Amino acid sequence: MKKHNFSAGPAVLPASVLKEAGKAAVNYQGMGLSLLELSHRGPEFTAIIEEANALMREIIGLPDNYHVLWLTGGASSQFFMAPMNLLNEDETALFVNTGVWADKAIIEAKAFGNVQVIASSKEQNYTFIPKDYKISKSAKYLHLTSNNTIYGTQMRKFPKSSVPIVCDMSSDFLSRPFKPEQFGLIYAGAQKNLGPAGTTVVIVRDDMLGTVLRHLPAMLDYRTFVKENSLYNTPPVFPIYVSMLTLRWIKKSGGLKTLQRRNKAKALLLYDEIDRNPLFRGTVAEEDRSYMNICFVMNEKYAALEAEFGKLCEANGMIGLKGHRSVGGFRASTYNALPQKSVQALVQLMRDFAERKG
Amino acid sequence: MKKHNFSAGPAVLPASVLKEAGKAAVNYQGMGLSLLELSHRGPEFTAIIEEANALMREIIGLPDNYHVLWLTGGASSQFFMAPMNLLNEDETALFVNTGVWADKAIIEAKAFGNVQVIASSKEQNYTFIPKDYKISKSAKYLHLTSNNTIYGTQMRKFPKSSVPIVCDMSSDFLSRPFKPEQFGLIYAGAQKNLGPAGTTVVIVRDDMLGTVLRHLPAMLDYRTFVKENSLYNTPPVFPIYVSMLTLRWIKKSGGLKTLQRRNKAKALLLYDEIDRNPLFRGTVAEEDRSYMNICFVMNEKYAALEAEFGKLCEANGMIGLKGHRSVGGFRASTYNALPQKSVQALVQLMRDFAERKG
Repeated sequence: MKKHNFSAGPAVLPASVLKEAGKAAVNYQGMGLSLLELSHRGPEFTAIIEEANALMREIIGLPDNYHVLWLTGGASSQFFMAPMNLLNEDETALFVNTGVWADKAIIEAKAFGNVQVIASSKEQNYTFIPKDYKISKSAKYLHLTSNNTIYGTQMRKFPKSSVPIVCDMSSDFLSRPFKPEQFGLIYAGAQKNLGPAGTTVVIVRDDMLGTVLRHLPAMLDYRTFVKENSLYNTPPVFPIYVSMLTLRWIKKSGGLKTLQRRNKAKALLLYDEIDRNPLFRGTVAEEDRSYMNICFVMNEKYAALEAEFGKLCEANGMIGLKGHRSVGGFRASTYNALPQKSVQALVQLMRDFAERKG
Repeated sequence: MKKHNFSAGPAVLPASVLKEAGKAAVNYQGMGLSLLELSHRGPEFTAIIEEANALMREIIGLPDNYHVLWLTGGASSQFFMAPMNLLNEDETALFVNTGVWADKAIIEAKAFGNVQVIASSKEQNYTFIPKDYKISKSAKYLHLTSNNTIYGTQMRKFPKSSVPIVCDMSSDFLSRPFKPEQFGLIYAGAQKNLGPAGTTVVIVRDDMLGTVLRHLPAMLDYRTFVKENSLYNTPPVFPIYVSMLTLRWIKKSGGLKTLQRRNKAKALLLYDEIDRNPLFRGTVAEEDRSYMNICFVMNEKYAALEAEFGKLCEANGMIGLKGHRSVGGFRASTYNALPQKSVQALVQLMRDFAERKG
């Protein structure tokens, strides 16, 4: 049975990418050696990381004064690395708290400088994106989370800011075009739209670096990765390779504008059904609905049917649909590589279920 | 042509492991989904990391008061994480400096406490392992590097120490049995005997943790990984999976004693030829010769033949034999998964070359 992979991350990747990754793990380009056993200093991996960087720059439209870095440790490591590299003890970073990941970023930043939460939807279980806040010109930077995987909210627009924006884009990175010039630093764990778990991309504007006074261990200093082209020590070779393959696929697919159109179409198809279907309802403010992670629950009247619908999804080859425990219900993650027909199958299942039960 | 992979790391892995890894990247256990797109919270990866931990414990013979942690960032990240987690500012860590990696560990540790280098072979280009030093009882720990990849030296025995030993075992981890009780903390990048690049194993005795006063970001605190079973955030799924497969292979191969015997046999075969062959000579003290990384250069009289021999090796499918620039000549890394016949082929080539040129 064909599987429909709605997992929140690690998540669905393009079938062609997986096929090529599988070949590379056994016999890379017919060399008689696996990519897993090749030196990261050899010509093969040098070509891979150079292509990954070039594709990333081209796909985003990255100006020359931005660096593309390949790190490890996930976005969770960026929660402390960003303030450690950017914020002096007497300086202030502003945060908009739109989810538990933003909340963790706030907690980690407090160890390095002043933290001011200028807006938060925490008290409303993060069901919307706050938009009414003032950005103090005296702050060092403003930290945002572009998409909140757990709650299914997304910043459709980024605020105008007189201070640099540091943005956790983990769960919608490369799902839509964005203006890199709006950001001082962007970070994203690969395991949503970019690749498998095991690498984390940081995109940083050159003038953001070198302004803090504290000591930085080499592996925690973004400048080490800039200077050594992410090859100060052995990088996560295979995760970077699969990310490069996915970047090729993104380019071949028509780039970020095309993917945005497709992602929006997939999301609206499902949101329309959620709104139409008497059994279900969405959980977040309509204007902040994510085009990546679509959260929905059973209407109260039908709450008892939740487990049954969950089992029906599983029986139909749909995986990863269980909502996060802090929201409940269901979450369909509709990342770049999720085919429209997977969403169609889910919508059909919801319709059929409502007809039988409604 | 069959390749002989003498790379220093990322390095040769067992063919059966690579075959299974390749399958998993496309279709994991016939699920119709790649392991690269499965949630790290799902039953599949839970089973993988639990098996990896159990195998690691069994293969090493690890007592219950030691934790097995799966991190990222390579040994280079442990150079600062170990002192950050273990050493207060007024405490002293002792170091034996046996190579550039030890030297980097020394530099990183200085930011966190007192550092005392009690022995060093740096002035002799790290051609031997110092053995004549005193270990002060008042120190917090002693840092050692068990094997020095670049120079081809190895600690055949570890010193008796009244303070805990912290050991960088990156390049000979799981190549021979060792007594875990001799160590307070062990770390190793996977990409030698354990798996592909992208994960780093830390083995730590429980009482080593929780003794420092400084603030530790969650992702830099070993206790986070202990508490969350290395699943605080998304771990590097595929590198851990391939490491688990390699651990299975180690067990099936007969465990560390068998591998030690094989590795010693491979190394002695090559060292014997180096010593016998008039064209070549070893570069390090005989008693400290590594059974993992075997460094040799042309004797002075034959120095002009170096490039020719290098090309001959390449022409015979031997890769990764170029010595590190700080030593020159050749380096044959003979990790667990390198077949004896690869060493035999190299030895034969050295013999034939000497007959033609000697």
